[in-house]
Amino acid sequence: MGERARRVRVEVRVELKPGIMDAESESIQKSLRLLDVPEVESVSTARVYTLSFEGIPRQKAKALAERAVDRLLANPVIHRVTITTLGD
Amino acid sequence: MGERARRVRVEVRVELKPGIMDAESESIQKSLRLLDVPEVESVSTARVYTLSFEGIPRQKAKALAERAVDRLLANPVIHRVTITTLGD
Repeated sequence: MGERARRVRVEVRVELKPGIMDAESESIQKSLRLLDVPEVESVSTARVYTLSFEGIPRQKAKALAERAVDRLLANPVIHRVTITTLGD
Repeated sequence: MGERARRVRVEVRVELKPGIMDAESESIQKSLRLLDVPEVESVSTARVYTLSFEGIPRQKAKALAERAVDRLLANPVIHRVTITTLGD
């Protein structure tokens, strides 16, 4: 398909599903009040993993990233995952 | 400026500066090899904090997010920070 098989980066964003208690967010919000930034109404956190691949087509890279998510990076019970292929 | 003062979200992305050892990335890459996903050439990680504000203009929200970064969310010695205002 004319797709260059160079460096492909896949960004995996892992966040807690709505309704799952996020202790880190709670703690940040409490700290911000103490640190005189009380205007923050809510905080949510996410972890982003950027996986780099060389010499692999984008579709293959995305499939491998999905495998990495299933096997290591996220827990489907509590996490919502967004996968974005970034190209070069 | 016709700017609506409704809900504003500011995304703060915190990652390690280049050259700072990222133990988590190393560990993920090692684990992915053991879990039969050896095609991943490198891994980098970032933490994303989404701060929500109500009834504050975007510029003010961004300034408050910068304050939160300075006081709590990042360490300028080791972290690179990207701040993006998301609007509603």
